[in-house]
Amino acid sequence: MCYMGPCRILGVRAAGKATIGVCGATADTIVARNLLRETIGGAASHTEHALEMAEALLDIAEGRLTSYTIKDAGKLIAVAKSLGVPTEGRSKEDMAKDVATIALNDIAKYDKEPMAFLKAYAPKSSYETWKKLDIIPSGAMLPIMNGMHRTSMGNDADPVNILLADLKLGLVDGYGGLTIATELSDIIFGTPKPVHSYANLGTIKEDYVNIAVHGHNPMLSEKILEVAERLEPRAREAGAKGINIVGVCCTGNELLMREGVSIAANEMQAESVIATGALEAMVVDFQCIWPILGQVASCYHTKLITTMPYVKIPGALHIEFSSEHADEIAEKIVGEAIAAYSNRDPARVNIPSEISEVFAGFSVEAIVGALSRLNPKDPLEPLITNIVNGNIYGVVGIVGCPNPKERKKLYTERLVKGLLKNNVMVIVTGCTAHITAQEGLMDPNKIDSFEIGAGLKAVLKAVGSASGLPSLPAVLHMGSCVDNSRIGVLLKALSEKLGVKVSDLPVVASAPELITEKAVAIGTWALDLGVSVHVAPALRIEGSKMVTEVLTKGLKDITGSVLIQEEDPDVAIETILGTIREKRLALKLNA
Amino acid sequence: MCYMGPCRILGVRAAGKATIGVCGATADTIVARNLLRETIGGAASHTEHALEMAEALLDIAEGRLTSYTIKDAGKLIAVAKSLGVPTEGRSKEDMAKDVATIALNDIAKYDKEPMAFLKAYAPKSSYETWKKLDIIPSGAMLPIMNGMHRTSMGNDADPVNILLADLKLGLVDGYGGLTIATELSDIIFGTPKPVHSYANLGTIKEDYVNIAVHGHNPMLSEKILEVAERLEPRAREAGAKGINIVGVCCTGNELLMREGVSIAANEMQAESVIATGALEAMVVDFQCIWPILGQVASCYHTKLITTMPYVKIPGALHIEFSSEHADEIAEKIVGEAIAAYSNRDPARVNIPSEISEVFAGFSVEAIVGALSRLNPKDPLEPLITNIVNGNIYGVVGIVGCPNPKERKKLYTERLVKGLLKNNVMVIVTGCTAHITAQEGLMDPNKIDSFEIGAGLKAVLKAVGSASGLPSLPAVLHMGSCVDNSRIGVLLKALSEKLGVKVSDLPVVASAPELITEKAVAIGTWALDLGVSVHVAPALRIEGSKMVTEVLTKGLKDITGSVLIQEEDPDVAIETILGTIREKRLALKLNA
Repeated sequence: MCYMGPCRILGVRAAGKATIGVCGATADTIVARNLLRETIGGAASHTEHALEMAEALLDIAEGRLTSYTIKDAGKLIAVAKSLGVPTEGRSKEDMAKDVATIALNDIAKYDKEPMAFLKAYAPKSSYETWKKLDIIPSGAMLPIMNGMHRTSMGNDADPVNILLADLKLGLVDGYGGLTIATELSDIIFGTPKPVHSYANLGTIKEDYVNIAVHGHNPMLSEKILEVAERLEPRAREAGAKGINIVGVCCTGNELLMREGVSIAANEMQAESVIATGALEAMVVDFQCIWPILGQVASCYHTKLITTMPYVKIPGALHIEFSSEHADEIAEKIVGEAIAAYSNRDPARVNIPSEISEVFAGFSVEAIVGALSRLNPKDPLEPLITNIVNGNIYGVVGIVGCPNPKERKKLYTERLVKGLLKNNVMVIVTGCTAHITAQEGLMDPNKIDSFEIGAGLKAVLKAVGSASGLPSLPAVLHMGSCVDNSRIGVLLKALSEKLGVKVSDLPVVASAPELITEKAVAIGTWALDLGVSVHVAPALRIEGSKMVTEVLTKGLKDITGSVLIQEEDPDVAIETILGTIREKRLALKLNA
Repeated sequence: MCYMGPCRILGVRAAGKATIGVCGATADTIVARNLLRETIGGAASHTEHALEMAEALLDIAEGRLTSYTIKDAGKLIAVAKSLGVPTEGRSKEDMAKDVATIALNDIAKYDKEPMAFLKAYAPKSSYETWKKLDIIPSGAMLPIMNGMHRTSMGNDADPVNILLADLKLGLVDGYGGLTIATELSDIIFGTPKPVHSYANLGTIKEDYVNIAVHGHNPMLSEKILEVAERLEPRAREAGAKGINIVGVCCTGNELLMREGVSIAANEMQAESVIATGALEAMVVDFQCIWPILGQVASCYHTKLITTMPYVKIPGALHIEFSSEHADEIAEKIVGEAIAAYSNRDPARVNIPSEISEVFAGFSVEAIVGALSRLNPKDPLEPLITNIVNGNIYGVVGIVGCPNPKERKKLYTERLVKGLLKNNVMVIVTGCTAHITAQEGLMDPNKIDSFEIGAGLKAVLKAVGSASGLPSLPAVLHMGSCVDNSRIGVLLKALSEKLGVKVSDLPVVASAPELITEKAVAIGTWALDLGVSVHVAPALRIEGSKMVTEVLTKGLKDITGSVLIQEEDPDVAIETILGTIREKRLALKLNA
């Protein structure tokens, strides 16, 4: 990170090779610094997402933004209560103003007080651990700045101190990023409820004006959906049967979870959506939007439309989004798509027929709702009872994106199926949700086509049938990647109800096709919480024995979790099951 | 920056090599992203420095911090006035509270309003340029976060857009970092005035308890100086003649400029200070502190003492600094040094005899003060007149640190001497100041031992003699690396007085031994201002033809400046002279 470098050293003595840099930095220091910068990249992404949601909520509350409303008053009240904001006899706007202001403060402040969202959403025992480690952030942006400073030349050289900063950034990500983004999105657009839809490229409709929304932010895509309905007549005038909105990546997940919009493709398949030849426009906001889309779109009639000032792609049409002019901008974008329809070359249309039914929308509120049909007074009881009796052996959250390095192994599918076979309940978010949806694992009607452990299957069917379904789907879709905060909420509820630490629960996280810095940040937050995290490919830490040891072993005595790096899905399944077994044994449950 | 990578591509087609990454990122995108992250590392460093000064000033103003005072009421009033803070009939504390609050806001806020410090300190014409480019930051931390976000996978792919973000980060550095840090340090510790002192390792005194202060922040080192005086008797009890404080790197420059403390070593020579065998303690704060110091200190009786929570070094003694307990902590540190004196091994003491006289302290206020002895009514007039008549051909600010890659060429000395010969006035900051001081270039008595152009020498002598000196020194020491903001203040004054753009002035900046990300950030700010910047070694941009072209050529039509990458000092001299010549011709001055 300086112009004596780049530092390329071997951590161990070898003929003619340096063991330390010119400045004296060891492999441990170098690796820890690099890891911290990766985590910062992720935490910064999520925090800016959260900032945009908080600014929007404040603008709505203060009447500056009239094209959006507060759709979910119940969620607003719940969030307000957890933050200690008075709710009695207050208007939605007044409460929303307080909630948004607290969120904005959490992001920007630099005092010594813990972030309010962290205090409200942290599991109690985790909070105590973090306090002892002195890693609780007071605001989100300061540790981002400090992390870039401390990793610059001639600052922190102590790998343990740098790893503590990394753990702090995990908390920035979890509370300054994920939690604020998710909770505020729910307030504005509604908390997801169980919803039926479709997945895969077969959701592109030949006779329609097809618009794919891609990225992570629901602000624009929700508007496009709304406007598209209004502009249906114009699409019909242009010769189409209507307008078909499909989701890509996590913007897709946001719209699926709240509006039932079909999800056509994960981040890695975005090119394929264009290559159907039937896509009029791909509208992107931020994150995971590969620059190659510009080149691919140029081979077709498709308009690639960028909308964020800080996400531009050579070859794309840039129509800048601003929430104040959301309707107008969405109309312009949908208009561009309708206009492009006449340029479509029917000879080049080739839409794969693959399509899966999807049952999604499993916010914590939705899960509690489904469980309360079994036990209205104590909805978590059926879940706990079945974990205790072993019908549910454990719970694994599988998150992240497809990585071409792992995709060829079908890593995600193999991991998920291996766990289901062993009665492990699988919850998914992000592009992992796309992969499992495409595999049919979210179709309740297909529950018997997969080899699922008898205990787990019975639970899925029981909960499903109480809600009038043949079953819950084999895997539960909890949302986009920022929605990993929902898993945090669930863990808090379970650990506090049982009076055990999160690290005592038979729960593991996995990013089986790790690709983004965001996944590194989310995984760091999971490690903070005491949830062991499996990743493939391995993090770039193997140049440092010490960093590797701390994360894969030493952390167990600190937060109660470890990092599991495993490239082979079959071995990963065994290791994850072993971790769950250990937790069950410690809780004196049958293992 | 993702786990498909690291991206190692060739920007041009070559057998078997990719021209773009898996995601489609081109060499242009990759290089621009990397450059932005480097600039962020620098801007984050300076902004955190500024934040700490602003917090200290607020604490002093509000009475929470009683061990520091506001030493320079005149500077406080001047800063308050430039920010539009009322001064009439107000107490120092009231004004300081407002100034500190504005500084803190500038760092943390995320609204759409330009930073107040930027508005106050930007040259008028530069401000208009930045407004047109839409690169004026509203706060400092947001662009840092946004920059990390936009460079993470799947965000900004447009190299031009990324370079605009880079230019914005330059402004964050210049105003959120440098300017706030310098102006507030002046308010608390006093604005530098011409001062006499010494440089080089010969400043270590054999019979004294020697303490070196190293890093960048004056908060602790000023205290150590104060406490050391009080503890002299204890040092004498321990058998020493007293306590000798010497400065290293920019903490050294801060103490030299304001207190006349000797400067023993630049950042690269810090090991040598320990290796004299006569150093009892090296006390470090932040930035440019090489981790090797831990190992070197362990070979001697020297205590390496780290003091910042985010700067720890394996092997060092950590005594954490907090401004509230500054006296107590400084006493403990000085006490450690006195205690270590008895462990010194006289047989291993080997202090080089090299020592130079130094005349430093050239803040803008000091320069104006010296010039006003020639023209009390219009102090800038003599400077301008001599630039116009060609006695001063141009002005070059030479900044940054020694880089071992360039040190062996004696790059800085050769560059400085080559410019002086051609009547170019040289101002220096940072570790470049150490190099030139050690070379004798800051000793007014040695003015005739160097080959200096006749015009320039006459001016230096005239200004010097008006102040009772044989001459001004050959190069003017303007302070530490954050004090580069002083050059910004001078440029603003000159450009506004003359009614020309900064880019019209015959001024160039050079970082002839570039090493830190901070230098990249400072250089970016200079490019923003319209000052062309020479660097060696070259920035890591040569993998992208486009980024290289924009920075080394295209920028000229945008901000009026270019980046000059040149490894050969003789060629660099010619190129810099050529740049000055061009500006002089455009101003219709003799060239």
